[in-house]
Amino acid sequence: MNVSSFRLMGVLGGMGPLATVDFLRKVVDATSAASDQDHIPFIVYSVPQIPDRTAAFFGWGPSPFSAMLKGVRTLETAGVESIAIPCNTAHLWHSQLQAQTPVEILHIVKATLEQVELQYGQPRLGLLATAATIESGLYQSHGQGKFDWVLPTEQELHEHVMPAIQAVKAGDLSLASDTLKRVAHHLFSRGAEVLVYGCTEVPIALQAESFPSIDPTLALAKQLVFRSTGCELVV
Amino acid sequence: MNVSSFRLMGVLGGMGPLATVDFLRKVVDATSAASDQDHIPFIVYSVPQIPDRTAAFFGWGPSPFSAMLKGVRTLETAGVESIAIPCNTAHLWHSQLQAQTPVEILHIVKATLEQVELQYGQPRLGLLATAATIESGLYQSHGQGKFDWVLPTEQELHEHVMPAIQAVKAGDLSLASDTLKRVAHHLFSRGAEVLVYGCTEVPIALQAESFPSIDPTLALAKQLVFRSTGCELVV
Repeated sequence: MNVSSFRLMGVLGGMGPLATVDFLRKVVDATSAASDQDHIPFIVYSVPQIPDRTAAFFGWGPSPFSAMLKGVRTLETAGVESIAIPCNTAHLWHSQLQAQTPVEILHIVKATLEQVELQYGQPRLGLLATAATIESGLYQSHGQGKFDWVLPTEQELHEHVMPAIQAVKAGDLSLASDTLKRVAHHLFSRGAEVLVYGCTEVPIALQAESFPSIDPTLALAKQLVFRSTGCELVV
Repeated sequence: MNVSSFRLMGVLGGMGPLATVDFLRKVVDATSAASDQDHIPFIVYSVPQIPDRTAAFFGWGPSPFSAMLKGVRTLETAGVESIAIPCNTAHLWHSQLQAQTPVEILHIVKATLEQVELQYGQPRLGLLATAATIESGLYQSHGQGKFDWVLPTEQELHEHVMPAIQAVKAGDLSLASDTLKRVAHHLFSRGAEVLVYGCTEVPIALQAESFPSIDPTLALAKQLVFRSTGCELVV
């Protein structure tokens, strides 16, 4: 066994389950491999019963923190060296979780904005994300003021984006895709140059090729592969 | 949290990594869910450095047993109640692993043959699988003599099926698909009525719709969902 050359990675998933599968597929695709043994080792904790992050942020539901911490502890016990969380909104609890563990927790927003700069420089960014991600300023507070943001209106957010995200969680991808495309066109018409698919359900319904865009799921997957192998894959 | 209504499941994966992702996707799709919280909780141990199963069977490489047992122990410690292994050839070590753990390890061949009977009765079965799965009689020894088998020839196996499986592991799906389709036609011309896609790389390259077929990955996924929820999904 050649395990020693790769570091064991952890994934705190289930938020949602299909987004976790999409993330794992991107991890496999972002690896340069000729055989099984060239792929990175990882452990996934996918417990979809973690309370809804958006509901918790708005005070409508319980906090997901203790359920997420249980996942982090399970991954820690299993021996992982870094953890990825393929859910943007969950990163509202990132620093609280990081304070509880010596294991590095990657940050999806930082990975995404690094990828934006590499690929596009400093474009005006449109943000497709949950109401909690947008209203908390999760994305806008990072990037050291380098980016201007074009956000969905309250109406677009609550009547279109959130139902589309829920449709992905329920498995209805074509409804989600049509809805998100309409909002995307509105963001471009209001000046966005590149879209951030800032909820892990969004890139499941919207192809990367549909618009000039950045997929945070892919940015995080690339970073996880890099942490495990020490080799950056230029895609 | 409503975790109590579902049992925590385990997946011993990484054999290969893409097959594990395909399996997880089928687990999510086989679940009747309207929100994240309706999906089953699971932990995946995906360590692709587990030694190659076919090489071990033929005595060309080390046994995967201790590496698989390490995965089983990790899942056991994390508290799973059943384990699925989305790799057919790995089931050559099924009873040896089961003897080491009180946690139930599902059996992909049994799940598959149950699905064959449900869906097709007792057809003559063509088998697309690794040389180790075929030459060990892994499939043929189950099913209580109910099924006749049509197998690839030595030449088809070593010159076409095995390279196609390797191509999937290396990410070349279109090469694998063309090759497997040719062998599938040969099996039908020699009397097969239904094909068993008996290596988890095969259904990644061959669509279920291409031929009258059974996908063991899907049969195992349905069984895992059933073990977690207690509810059978009729698909």
